[in-house]
Amino acid sequence: MKIVIVGGTGTIGKAVAKELGQRHRIIVATSHGEHKVDMTSVQSIEKMYQSISDIDAIIITAGKISFKPLAVITPEDYQIGFDNKLMGQVNMVLIGQRYLKENGSFTLTSGRLSDDPVRSGSNGSVVNAAINSFVKAAAIELPKGMRINAVSPTIIEESKHHYEAFFRGFEPVPAARVALAYSKSVEGAQTGRVYPVG
Amino acid sequence: MKIVIVGGTGTIGKAVAKELGQRHRIIVATSHGEHKVDMTSVQSIEKMYQSISDIDAIIITAGKISFKPLAVITPEDYQIGFDNKLMGQVNMVLIGQRYLKENGSFTLTSGRLSDDPVRSGSNGSVVNAAINSFVKAAAIELPKGMRINAVSPTIIEESKHHYEAFFRGFEPVPAARVALAYSKSVEGAQTGRVYPVG
Repeated sequence: MKIVIVGGTGTIGKAVAKELGQRHRIIVATSHGEHKVDMTSVQSIEKMYQSISDIDAIIITAGKISFKPLAVITPEDYQIGFDNKLMGQVNMVLIGQRYLKENGSFTLTSGRLSDDPVRSGSNGSVVNAAINSFVKAAAIELPKGMRINAVSPTIIEESKHHYEAFFRGFEPVPAARVALAYSKSVEGAQTGRVYPVG
Repeated sequence: MKIVIVGGTGTIGKAVAKELGQRHRIIVATSHGEHKVDMTSVQSIEKMYQSISDIDAIIITAGKISFKPLAVITPEDYQIGFDNKLMGQVNMVLIGQRYLKENGSFTLTSGRLSDDPVRSGSNGSVVNAAINSFVKAAAIELPKGMRINAVSPTIIEESKHHYEAFFRGFEPVPAARVALAYSKSVEGAQTGRVYPVG
């Protein structure tokens, strides 16, 4: 298969590339480099799809959210998560449905905050739940046998030092374990599913 | 209690006003009339809170979403649901946390599309799931003993003729039954809960 990983240079993206790279051709798309994509721009997404032909699977492991206490978070802070992690991924699907090969698959990334909230995490909760629900809804409307799933990881062992103070008591998982869920989505046959990891 | 119902002239809002009006003082806020509020404007929400003192409970039964096939829905269509039903309700809480009385409550409205998708319903799925997750996240950060819950109704008996063609096989519930969930949220003591009805 020809698999595009958007955000393939991040902690999860690299582990997914390593897992799937053993059996498939991997193309890494990032905000800079050979295969460029800015997920907040529909023009940029359109251009990426036009420049890479015959894609079997799109995996997205990128997306920004706001992280602020409920007492001070603003509508503009919320919009950051909507424009980046949420609509960035949704637009990769809305546009991608016209470019992906028959029986191709989309695998999105959400996160456990959807059901397991922490202080300052409301934007993450909202965005992750929205992504999980989007894959359930999109799965019943995608054309040409296309499939869509989401991986919902908890905090990652390799990058936990950045934010573990906000996630006390959450058991970190190695990125290699999270990568297995992407393999299940891409190499399996399920659709409309959310795979929680950790 | 002094209870404000935003959208109190709609099918659900009227049933909620009837149920809770038996025991409490009800103020209905709409886009026109004595108590005005435009949920898409933070200035308008701020003004509403400044004009009504000592609110014990806010109930929101208003909010617009887009309803279009996945093949043609656009980022702008998605933004309609974000600006109206989602951020309209979120902003009523973000601003309201500074105005509500101690131990006051917020009750938001989502809908069963979050987990039970239909064709053309992806924006509704995403928005409703986001609202459900917001109440779980906000519940752990609200100040002064404030509570928050969401009611997630299926299609309503009294208004089903508008959209039943999109919801074949969904069992309609009378608005009076949905109203009971709002009573449970406002008059009970739970927080961070989603009450599915139907």
